[in-house]
Amino acid sequence: NHIIVCGYGRVGRQVVTELKQNKERFVVVETKQEIFNLNDVRGGIIPVYGDATKDEILKEAGIEKAKAVITTLPNDADNLYVVLSARELNPKVKIIARASRFPSVKKMRVAGASNVIMPDSLGGAHMALLVLNPDTVDFIDQLSIHKPNSPSLVEIDFNSRSESTSFGALKDLTADVTLLGVKKANGDILISPKEDLMVEKGEKLFAIANHDVVTEFKNQIAKI
Amino acid sequence: NHIIVCGYGRVGRQVVTELKQNKERFVVVETKQEIFNLNDVRGGIIPVYGDATKDEILKEAGIEKAKAVITTLPNDADNLYVVLSARELNPKVKIIARASRFPSVKKMRVAGASNVIMPDSLGGAHMALLVLNPDTVDFIDQLSIHKPNSPSLVEIDFNSRSESTSFGALKDLTADVTLLGVKKANGDILISPKEDLMVEKGEKLFAIANHDVVTEFKNQIAKI
Ligand SMILES: [Ca+2]
Ligand SMILES: [Ca+2]
Repeated sequence: NHIIVCGYGRVGRQVVTELKQNKERFVVVETKQEIFNLNDVRGGIIPVYGDATKDEILKEAGIEKAKAVITTLPNDADNLYVVLSARELNPKVKIIARASRFPSVKKMRVAGASNVIMPDSLGGAHMALLVLNPDTVDFIDQLSIHKPNSPSLVEIDFNSRSESTSFGALKDLTADVTLLGVKKANGDILISPKEDLMVEKGEKLFAIANHDVVTEFKNQIAKI
Repeated sequence: NHIIVCGYGRVGRQVVTELKQNKERFVVVETKQEIFNLNDVRGGIIPVYGDATKDEILKEAGIEKAKAVITTLPNDADNLYVVLSARELNPKVKIIARASRFPSVKKMRVAGASNVIMPDSLGGAHMALLVLNPDTVDFIDQLSIHKPNSPSLVEIDFNSRSESTSFGALKDLTADVTLLGVKKANGDILISPKEDLMVEKGEKLFAIANHDVVTEFKNQIAKI
């Protein structure tokens, strides 16, 4: 139930920083032994030396029992290969893949990636946002921070007696919860969908709400 | 009062996509003429061929009258050079710089960059968060990246005939815009404030909306 990070370049290093901050268990697969410095080893990083595109290396990294693979190799073809191998060796593992070129994104999804991230596009979007909407960056930060008695972005599972309900009906349930979107069963995220969009059992709602009204809202949903 | 984008690689292209969607005026400085394809030229991109680290090229791009410079060159030393030159040629311009290595961040800030973005670190952080807190991150990503015909997070200035209006009255104006919060004159950001909160002239609203309904919404606000 650990995480496998493939590649220890700039992207991989940042992944590791985040995982360490969250006290997650992980190993790092990297071909170049010399890339790990003394701080890395002292910091508790468990390296697996070898090529992540090889099944035996993924097995050595514990792919069969892993909960997630994050592949950050510099080459799209290599990441695609890791996605395919990881998916084959563990049908349930979550796979996050890095891509550099747009055409790779679809290929990686088809191959079994749960999410594909393009650092350059993300960076470019962020740079533009800092000019276009500097306050938005601020706003999103506030939205993501959960504080008592202050509304923030929350995830709410749609578990009701009905098989499905319209997004509009859910919006009308209470004024204390501002519904923003839905994650559909196929993984698509719909932002401000039309009121007649049907939300199905087991799907997920995104909303802005105080933490203390979420439980009440879930109870209201349960009765639908 | 335009934006200068330096570099038309993957990062620069994404910057341009965002600027175009926001109908911003911009020029793109790039040494390689062949990097621009027919779509770019038809899409209204104004190229300035040359090396952005040269003062005369920045002047040709209109640095003295620009409101912002976004430098996305692949090399940190080049971006640092652009930051220094741009700051010298226009003390008021907003400068967003790309960096690859951590030590460059501080240097660029000292040189006059308003913000420094590291795409690889940003990408790595996102990849980790997709494992640690998957759906929220996915949702926020979708919210922030502007795509045609897809609602996203927008900022709307409150410029009306009235001095102030309640947040509730603004919410009732249209169902096409989901109001999320307000940035008050003192800089405070209020998320989902109470309906009786007064929004004052010059303050800013945050909302989820399609880009094409924002203008209409602004017109409605103006008449209040
Ligand atoms: Ca703005
Ligand atoms: Ca989550």
